[in-house]
Amino acid sequence: MNEPMNELRRDPLSGNWIIIGERIGGKRPFQYEKCPFCPGQEDQTPPPIYTRTDNGSWLVRVVPDRFPVLQIEGDLNKYGVDMYDRMDGIGAHEIIIESPDHKATLGTLSVRNIAFLLETWQQRILDLKKDKRFSYILVFRNQGPGTGVFTAHPYSQVVATPFIPTVVKPNLKSMKRYFELKERCILCDSIAQVRRSGDRIIAQTKNFISIAPFASQSMYETMILPLCHSYEFECDNTWERLEELARLLKRVVGAIESLMLENPSHTLVIHTSPNLDSDNDTEGQWKTLKQDFHWFIRIMPHPNPMSGFERGTGISTNIMSPEKATLLLREKLATIPIDID
Amino acid sequence: MNEPMNELRRDPLSGNWIIIGERIGGKRPFQYEKCPFCPGQEDQTPPPIYTRTDNGSWLVRVVPDRFPVLQIEGDLNKYGVDMYDRMDGIGAHEIIIESPDHKATLGTLSVRNIAFLLETWQQRILDLKKDKRFSYILVFRNQGPGTGVFTAHPYSQVVATPFIPTVVKPNLKSMKRYFELKERCILCDSIAQVRRSGDRIIAQTKNFISIAPFASQSMYETMILPLCHSYEFECDNTWERLEELARLLKRVVGAIESLMLENPSHTLVIHTSPNLDSDNDTEGQWKTLKQDFHWFIRIMPHPNPMSGFERGTGISTNIMSPEKATLLLREKLATIPIDID
Repeated sequence: MNEPMNELRRDPLSGNWIIIGERIGGKRPFQYEKCPFCPGQEDQTPPPIYTRTDNGSWLVRVVPDRFPVLQIEGDLNKYGVDMYDRMDGIGAHEIIIESPDHKATLGTLSVRNIAFLLETWQQRILDLKKDKRFSYILVFRNQGPGTGVFTAHPYSQVVATPFIPTVVKPNLKSMKRYFELKERCILCDSIAQVRRSGDRIIAQTKNFISIAPFASQSMYETMILPLCHSYEFECDNTWERLEELARLLKRVVGAIESLMLENPSHTLVIHTSPNLDSDNDTEGQWKTLKQDFHWFIRIMPHPNPMSGFERGTGISTNIMSPEKATLLLREKLATIPIDID
Repeated sequence: MNEPMNELRRDPLSGNWIIIGERIGGKRPFQYEKCPFCPGQEDQTPPPIYTRTDNGSWLVRVVPDRFPVLQIEGDLNKYGVDMYDRMDGIGAHEIIIESPDHKATLGTLSVRNIAFLLETWQQRILDLKKDKRFSYILVFRNQGPGTGVFTAHPYSQVVATPFIPTVVKPNLKSMKRYFELKERCILCDSIAQVRRSGDRIIAQTKNFISIAPFASQSMYETMILPLCHSYEFECDNTWERLEELARLLKRVVGAIESLMLENPSHTLVIHTSPNLDSDNDTEGQWKTLKQDFHWFIRIMPHPNPMSGFERGTGISTNIMSPEKATLLLREKLATIPIDID
């Protein structure tokens, strides 16, 4: 690469890694005449890393991000700068085109398409975890205006990082600390708790549960988890379970979408375990996570732009209790067939 | 109060407190015919808590927030709900009207007005710290479109909370951990470091320094700190030092404003020590912070809306290195008189 690489610097106060460099969006917005993710425009994206076809045409395509914030080639080159920590901006950044249908949303895609999408997420995580430079493989998707999407065409992103991403790090610590204290998984306990009280269960299937978190950060925030302890989302991969999960996801997101027609924006994040084979677990902190970590999917609607209060304090405010959100979501779910395709 | 109170719930995964309740902005947006912060509209706000006059008319006014997210009356009522933690939404939420001038910004207010504003921030912190229910008094201000301000009239907010706010908590931990390791204050070390290398010093006065942080999260992010170790912003209050700090703040923010004319939005946060007299330091974690905590002001411009990548990963991306931002800010500062009024 002749272009200068982005750099990773650790903020000594927050402990978070920041990506610094002119390659971040420096060339954006790139002007496309047509949506580059639509069928017929395949030459507008780099060659695919992975393609899932169905009846002879593609259903899901994975391509490298055209303007990656982290680059795949090179060594980490971790070193100190005076009292500070930095490393080269190494990582992977991929785009998953989720369907040929430009107008689809997660609530309208077919269950079969979503199952293929889940399978694709799993394949990319499994593949990228082979790279020992990467501590974590994060899959996420944004949908709707104001979430930073550059096209309405449904897509998700995969980012592999040589550190634990900011949205994941506190969870790992809390799960570990809870296990040390209780010798039980915090999310297994949460599931048992919500099944006793019942007041935050949005939907349940044979193997999965969808709940409104006790301290939901936004209206209709939803978690989907396996009922039995499992630390690796990417290994939960029998076709039967994928279809079951796909159907639950479609129904729950469909209910959220129809409750939030005026501002249908949300972010979905897959929380799976870090890369246990990574070279970066220098403190051996992850060795316990087979017991203490429980994978989950988090769906976070964005009903409003961030308020001035939230910007200043970092404290989330939520005008609807999770108990009330559960009632409204259940009411809406009652109108969506349980065996929807 | 007959209205139901907001509730504070702790997210067991992130460890953060979330404010949940219908009183949050439930009645907003309130329609005012004229800006309620302008002279002549004083009856549109609740009676002032504090007023700073100059030559017979008010220069700075402090009023309770009309729609507070936390309320001042009542006991904390902390208790567990099953495996979770909650307490009543107790706190203080005040608005500081910073000037009679509707169109002023922090870069255009007079140095004298800013010095009065700094003094007002200090007075409110000192006063609210007398309340042992409050762990922290946070002062912040947003400026510009997209930051959640409801009027262009310059104002800041004071929030007193029975917990450490999310933006402050990791800093306290990092400062404490650094001190345990080095037996020195992390920001004293940072100042010594930047004075040796010189490449991130934006401006310096007799007692204060303005620097671009090593891992700046956004273009032109700036910290202003006292050169000598001091853990309490609110006690740094001789008039001479307040004027010196006001002048530095005006010059630096003025430089940022003129470099970011196209998107002049930023958030400023005062980071001072927690309330050492609070009843909430149950773990005795704050007893060391006279040594390990160093107060600072952080100015965080928002050049762009949050990207999809940042939403999904929580990882900040910054297209301009702090070294380059320093050069541009210094160039701009050279055009603003050192003895500006």
